[in-house]
Amino acid sequence: MRFCPWAQRALIYASVKNVPSEVINIHLKEKPDWYFSKHYKGQVPALELDEGKKHVIESAHIPEYFYDLFPESRILPSDPYEKVQQKLLLERLAAVAPAFYAAAQAANNPEGRDEKYAALVKAFEDAEKLLTGDFFSGKAKPGFADYLIFPNYQRVFWLSHILPNSPFSSESFPGPNFPKLAKWYRTLDSIPEVAAASQPTEMGVGFFNDYLKGTPNYDYGL
Amino acid sequence: MRFCPWAQRALIYASVKNVPSEVINIHLKEKPDWYFSKHYKGQVPALELDEGKKHVIESAHIPEYFYDLFPESRILPSDPYEKVQQKLLLERLAAVAPAFYAAAQAANNPEGRDEKYAALVKAFEDAEKLLTGDFFSGKAKPGFADYLIFPNYQRVFWLSHILPNSPFSSESFPGPNFPKLAKWYRTLDSIPEVAAASQPTEMGVGFFNDYLKGTPNYDYGL
Repeated sequence: MRFCPWAQRALIYASVKNVPSEVINIHLKEKPDWYFSKHYKGQVPALELDEGKKHVIESAHIPEYFYDLFPESRILPSDPYEKVQQKLLLERLAAVAPAFYAAAQAANNPEGRDEKYAALVKAFEDAEKLLTGDFFSGKAKPGFADYLIFPNYQRVFWLSHILPNSPFSSESFPGPNFPKLAKWYRTLDSIPEVAAASQPTEMGVGFFNDYLKGTPNYDYGL
Repeated sequence: MRFCPWAQRALIYASVKNVPSEVINIHLKEKPDWYFSKHYKGQVPALELDEGKKHVIESAHIPEYFYDLFPESRILPSDPYEKVQQKLLLERLAAVAPAFYAAAQAANNPEGRDEKYAALVKAFEDAEKLLTGDFFSGKAKPGFADYLIFPNYQRVFWLSHILPNSPFSSESFPGPNFPKLAKWYRTLDSIPEVAAASQPTEMGVGFFNDYLKGTPNYDYGL
């Protein structure tokens, strides 16, 4: 699904690692029957290999599989302790995802909106504290946690254009209270491999505008 | 926590891989302050290394960390595709865990009991289908998915002694409708390293009897 942050994780990884791939998008409300032979739950993403003989599913496992398959272009650290810390950091940062979906629901429903916004802001505050250098990798360049969490932040960026009284700025996203995250977001967003795996902002904003009304158009802008 | 299935995952792995370790149990309702310096959420398990300088948390990550740290005694396959399939299989089998907690709630509350039991039976039926050989490893001996899912099945075994009209047999657990799982459970349960990382049945049953009444005694039987 073109606007799915979990599918985008696989696209970014394939792009950064330069793995040749073909992308097949599906309609998430009218899933084709054949897709369940690729992913038993019918969720995205699924990676198909060897002309359909092999499948790897789930947004965090596909990048780890790429790590094992192509160690020469590894993004995860080879040191066991640093490696597991990147995976744990990603899970911690992923608190932004459920907070995003809750805040999105509040776009057209003021009930509980303040609490939902506050939970999303809290996820950003936690991330701002966890970002001790330029990147979540702890290195001079982006790593596993940076690439994989970026799509979730991009969804909040899109949302910041739509949300009534958005707690985030769409100009200098996420805003002046998050100086490290703002620099991080700007840097990640401008990396060619990440941009190549992203939908343009106007597409993302347009898609979510419909999505929040309960009428998502998965072909938006095509 | 002595009866926690997630903590037991780490114990089983340390036992099978023969990693010398000291176990510190904590009281889950009155968590000691110091524990939050080991695990930011205060959950179990946490693995402490290098005299407190390093920590690895989460029940699936500790075994994977052991894999990277001690590859000579690896339990996960070294083939990238087989390895990722074991991890995905574990996540699929882990559907038993939320179904277990829902069924446990039904012990003292008949409302919705049938549906909750049905969901747990469904998780067992799915697992019975996924068990195509003797083990979930697909090999002649237990692997990653076998060791890590065993504690969750053991909790259902304990529960089968307590639940009113239990859909599972505590004699030939899980019962005659699950011939492959029954053999699998008996085999895993009798492995010395697994037994060494397990509480005796009477302890587990006694603990859960109190737990279901809302008065868990984490020191039960001590």
